[in-house]
Amino acid sequence: MHRVGIFGASGYAGMELRALLDAHPAVEVAFATTDRDAGARGRDCEVALLATPAEASVELAPALLAAGARVVDLSNAFRFQPERAAYGMPELAAGVRAAVRAARLVANPGCYPTAASLALAPLLAAGVIARDDLIVDAMSGVTGAGRRSEDAYSFVELHANARAYRVLRHQHQPEIAQNLGAAASSAVDVTFTPHLVPIARGILATCYARATRDVTADALAELLRAAYAGERFVRVVASADDVQLADVVGTNDCAIGVACAGRRVVVVSAIDNLLKGAAGQAVQNLNLMLGCDERAGLTALRRWHP
Amino acid sequence: MHRVGIFGASGYAGMELRALLDAHPAVEVAFATTDRDAGARGRDCEVALLATPAEASVELAPALLAAGARVVDLSNAFRFQPERAAYGMPELAAGVRAAVRAARLVANPGCYPTAASLALAPLLAAGVIARDDLIVDAMSGVTGAGRRSEDAYSFVELHANARAYRVLRHQHQPEIAQNLGAAASSAVDVTFTPHLVPIARGILATCYARATRDVTADALAELLRAAYAGERFVRVVASADDVQLADVVGTNDCAIGVACAGRRVVVVSAIDNLLKGAAGQAVQNLNLMLGCDERAGLTALRRWHP
Amino acid sequence: MHRVGIFGASGYAGMELRALLDAHPAVEVAFATTDRDAGARGRDCEVALLATPAEASVELAPALLAAGARVVDLSNAFRFQPERAAYGMPELAAGVRAAVRAARLVANPGCYPTAASLALAPLLAAGVIARDDLIVDAMSGVTGAGRRSEDAYSFVELHANARAYRVLRHQHQPEIAQNLGAAASSAVDVTFTPHLVPIARGILATCYARATRDVTADALAELLRAAYAGERFVRVVASADDVQLADVVGTNDCAIGVACAGRRVVVVSAIDNLLKGAAGQAVQNLNLMLGCDERAGLTALRRWHP
Amino acid sequence: MHRVGIFGASGYAGMELRALLDAHPAVEVAFATTDRDAGARGRDCEVALLATPAEASVELAPALLAAGARVVDLSNAFRFQPERAAYGMPELAAGVRAAVRAARLVANPGCYPTAASLALAPLLAAGVIARDDLIVDAMSGVTGAGRRSEDAYSFVELHANARAYRVLRHQHQPEIAQNLGAAASSAVDVTFTPHLVPIARGILATCYARATRDVTADALAELLRAAYAGERFVRVVASADDVQLADVVGTNDCAIGVACAGRRVVVVSAIDNLLKGAAGQAVQNLNLMLGCDERAGLTALRRWHP
Repeated sequence: MHRVGIFGASGYAGMELRALLDAHPAVEVAFATTDRDAGARGRDCEVALLATPAEASVELAPALLAAGARVVDLSNAFRFQPERAAYGMPELAAGVRAAVRAARLVANPGCYPTAASLALAPLLAAGVIARDDLIVDAMSGVTGAGRRSEDAYSFVELHANARAYRVLRHQHQPEIAQNLGAAASSAVDVTFTPHLVPIARGILATCYARATRDVTADALAELLRAAYAGERFVRVVASADDVQLADVVGTNDCAIGVACAGRRVVVVSAIDNLLKGAAGQAVQNLNLMLGCDERAGLTALRRWHP
Repeated sequence: MHRVGIFGASGYAGMELRALLDAHPAVEVAFATTDRDAGARGRDCEVALLATPAEASVELAPALLAAGARVVDLSNAFRFQPERAAYGMPELAAGVRAAVRAARLVANPGCYPTAASLALAPLLAAGVIARDDLIVDAMSGVTGAGRRSEDAYSFVELHANARAYRVLRHQHQPEIAQNLGAAASSAVDVTFTPHLVPIARGILATCYARATRDVTADALAELLRAAYAGERFVRVVASADDVQLADVVGTNDCAIGVACAGRRVVVVSAIDNLLKGAAGQAVQNLNLMLGCDERAGLTALRRWHP
Repeated sequence: MHRVGIFGASGYAGMELRALLDAHPAVEVAFATTDRDAGARGRDCEVALLATPAEASVELAPALLAAGARVVDLSNAFRFQPERAAYGMPELAAGVRAAVRAARLVANPGCYPTAASLALAPLLAAGVIARDDLIVDAMSGVTGAGRRSEDAYSFVELHANARAYRVLRHQHQPEIAQNLGAAASSAVDVTFTPHLVPIARGILATCYARATRDVTADALAELLRAAYAGERFVRVVASADDVQLADVVGTNDCAIGVACAGRRVVVVSAIDNLLKGAAGQAVQNLNLMLGCDERAGLTALRRWHP
Repeated sequence: MHRVGIFGASGYAGMELRALLDAHPAVEVAFATTDRDAGARGRDCEVALLATPAEASVELAPALLAAGARVVDLSNAFRFQPERAAYGMPELAAGVRAAVRAARLVANPGCYPTAASLALAPLLAAGVIARDDLIVDAMSGVTGAGRRSEDAYSFVELHANARAYRVLRHQHQPEIAQNLGAAASSAVDVTFTPHLVPIARGILATCYARATRDVTADALAELLRAAYAGERFVRVVASADDVQLADVVGTNDCAIGVACAGRRVVVVSAIDNLLKGAAGQAVQNLNLMLGCDERAGLTALRRWHP
């Protein structure tokens, strides 16, 4: 059994990590703590998983690495430092898994970037959509905001309500741009708008692009299916209308569907923000680092609906 | 008191009409029926309001007109026949009110087209956004689908769920294109994607455009405020982040906010789909036809939150 | 126009009061404040409405009275001091309205006690149910807890969840017991259990009693209808199954239905906790104090569904 | 691997059974059908699980038994025929498990009866509460009504709404009375009121009784803990306030908490209506019939919150 430690254990992602790892066949949770400055505990575990805010991760990760542990950080502290951390979205590109296996520090992706990147990256890599006119319009369940004691996140304020937030200034836009730029092998112009809706879990991303040549929805779907051939956690469904949160919440899956009319391309993707968008993807990365089957600890998950 | 009749009285829009008109100071509801072929009742009322499906409206409206009544039709049966029906969105353009006042048949706008057109039309009319790169990404409450006895609209299927539907083939896209084209005085290219979310009432539309020149969010908001100066039911708020369903549900208001970064423009608008998106706007049109204050019967409405 | 002041204006009941009084035909809101120690403002208004916590009301009310204002207090500070304050549930008993009209200080009832008392008081007064075996099992919308910045009241914690709270020790039990005891002209034994459910507004109370003689549901319903004959805000419906929150939320109404089998009597009642359970009933009391029609400011309300 | 068949596979309980059995270590799903008259398929399986309406089960069960299969029926068709079917609530009484192990036909309990019986049976068996004054007031998630294509079960009608239904005439009352009567070794007088609330899954039962002697909540909780010592799926928590749906939905657990003041006893229990209240308990019974560990196929379940 590999000994792992969890930091930030009382937040939603931390609780989810704990639940997944308690059921993991090859992992033992050596400790789960809400302590944010216990870097010395890197001695007590082989891998530390940080579900802490970025400002805590910035302090913790170097201390844990120095103490001998490897680290998976779920915050955005290290997602823009490729020289320092492997960016852990296994299905995103060919070299990711090898990089994660070898890494001492893995930056676990953000939830919105996961949904958006899995939807668009293969199409950009294939050159079939333009890289200068991309829009990601997404809605997220409230757990995406973390555990909050604020009136704005109360049941009364959020039920029967919806709004966009941080329009044109959300912190996940640069991460989406980085991923899509890497796929396109060139800088992209991507607009990102998140929305808060009265749902607890799940992200639905509706992504807009322009085709660079005449193409059909079926051809685009085939291209995506080819890109994700053999992937266990990414599923391309029959059409954009066939993607729904209820099919992915509770699972580590990403569902993707495509529509196309003329040169207008719409790709819809859905994930559970706490699983494929956080703790589930972290377990994939942990498995790669430990040499386990990438699916270990994730096979018993099933959709929560109805 | 003006005598009016309501057809399609058992649907959500019909019930809303009934509630509004029962409280209207200058109107008497002569009848409210679920009968779909009672055109002869046009003799019993000055104005007939049709909250019927388009296929029923197509039969009913001519019969009612022939019987002497004027007609406001809430379906999409007559929205594309300007020679036959006035398109009744009073705030959309300068000539609308005069046309509605004089009309014998008024086509009441769709809910999504109302939210989208009020958000974008003034910016297109001013030439400050390009007409060839428009996206309307919207979510609607479930009442927007009408009263349904289908498993797909059950509480169990819709709670905790969200999905896009009729992607790139929704029947409201041509209506949006018609309105925005009229504002731009030229054909537009607009993509429209509706989403179903677990909310009963309300539409939130997030609209994407490209500025044709350097401009700020504040300047765009001022432009919208100038366009809607004196309007009682359209309100331009401080920013795109300040638009939320909770502020409009229960009212006949449309709230609009703008964000801008570089040439990327995002306009977010919100309405109650059954009021400004259906019955409330129909009452505005009825008031214009009857020579009443346009706000009659709509002043006691107030937001439903919390 | 009568000048009134609102204290505790930022809470849910205070906001509701503000909305009702802004639309009241005979009242002018002189001020609405969140200040809790502005007793001197009693000079600026004819009646002060306190939507403040009990500990603030205890300080404010005497100061306001001393400054010359009359007071309606929505907290439980004065509900058990009949010598000092009139208990303002107009439909509860014959003498209430006269007492409220004459009072300088009115204690506005609690939300649960309103639902429970209107359901059971006439049956106790008639002696048709026993006073020693009463149970009130109720569920409340989350606004009943007031405006909260606590994780326990967040959307994430409350959605898809339900629980009983303060079982056998809720502060509303003595108020229910006082009201029912007055109706029965003798002490009663009443058990009260509140539940929190994922709804924003509304109280549904299911009340259990034992009939003292053979009786039918219809006879009990007739007895209730007779007790509430002429009442505008209390409605006895066909059966216990016909009471639902959707019919009262948004209104100042109380709906009551009865079932009976053998000697087992079940009375179900429903109110909007912020209207008939708080601000709406306070406006009834204000109207009585000012000599207005009791319904003034409450006639434009309508149910919020769908 | 034991071969089992599922009838009624498209309903909520049937889908849940399918999901559980697909993950069961010792079971193979030979077939899952929506066919209601395929009794001959009893040849194809060792045990048939019927998630069919009672009228279908009445036809199917004898045919399946005749064809050689053993049967677990989830409807109420056989719950009142002890001579013909074992009543399969393993934790209810000492002899249940042996009876289920030996049975050819098992009647799987109803959801409300499961929650109510586990809460009250040990207290009745101990004689510490009176058997002539019992009330079970319960709320259920909407899946409890089965898969419905009716306007009354639509999202629009049920959201933000709550009501009691079938008051004093629900079909589960006799089953509750039978179970509690068996525990008390004498007929009981129990009133049962179910409520529908805007939740998809879960039952919360608030049960009222009178203590027969002076007793404390702690003593009653200890009595329940002793009764369920060694049980994996029944958990007695610290107090009645500590029982919440969120802790049991997604699991096969029943949580129970007690409050007591004077002679008034309140026991609150919670289950997932589709698991411990239907498919999960059916798997317990199946495991007993097959000689498997009773928990097989149920160990990977975990709560769905947040």
